[in-house]
Amino acid sequence: MPTMTAAQQRAEAKVQYDAFLAACPSRQLLDRLSDKWVTLVVAALGSGPDCAGGPAPMRFSELARTLAGVSQKMLTQTLRSLERDGLVTRTVTPTVPVTVHYELTDLGLSLHALVRGIKDWAQDHMDDVVAARAAYDGA
Amino acid sequence: MPTMTAAQQRAEAKVQYDAFLAACPSRQLLDRLSDKWVTLVVAALGSGPDCAGGPAPMRFSELARTLAGVSQKMLTQTLRSLERDGLVTRTVTPTVPVTVHYELTDLGLSLHALVRGIKDWAQDHMDDVVAARAAYDGA
Repeated sequence: MPTMTAAQQRAEAKVQYDAFLAACPSRQLLDRLSDKWVTLVVAALGSGPDCAGGPAPMRFSELARTLAGVSQKMLTQTLRSLERDGLVTRTVTPTVPVTVHYELTDLGLSLHALVRGIKDWAQDHMDDVVAARAAYDGA
Repeated sequence: MPTMTAAQQRAEAKVQYDAFLAACPSRQLLDRLSDKWVTLVVAALGSGPDCAGGPAPMRFSELARTLAGVSQKMLTQTLRSLERDGLVTRTVTPTVPVTVHYELTDLGLSLHALVRGIKDWAQDHMDDVVAARAAYDGA
């Protein structure tokens, strides 16, 4: 087979993942990221227990308190999948009883800024969306 | 009732929407935004029919082609909800047969940059996530 030039290799690498394609692995990853609980857990871990600081390790109970309304099962599942995807680390400290902390990895931190942006957008533009819905439903 | 100072009013307005709270309307909006098809439709309309240009109006069939694997029903539902939320306009041109175009509103455009970031992140970091999953499953 003819070898590729560096430019061809870059072009090849560039089209390798395309989330518009149903069969592309990145579409499945986008499915995972496009999940309310993933967004909220990553946003919470990036803001710390006081919701206003920087990224900080948090205990399960602190996360459950921050994400009002999340079930224990859903939070456990979300944290496990985030750990598997390399976005969150789980650290067990051998106290009595054991203490478990969750923290964003560097990969998780790189996603945090984006996810936080979506959450902030939803909060900042809620009034616009409510007005648009009222206009649509009235028309 | 005592009147609020300007600073108090700003503080009040600032806490008005908090997507961490289950009962907050912005949590429901975040639910809508945290949807694979919303992400892909907004990303597609912001990139135009050639997937690499700027925001451009697109026909239903162009969107269906870009979002490989989307069903007609799911695309119709997603576009209708985006129109209701004020993120997309639907323009009917009285040709024979009629031509229908969908386009991002200014509100939709403000969301586009964020959504595009999430899609690009998924594509750029797919290899990291695949490696993390392999390590997790092997451990």
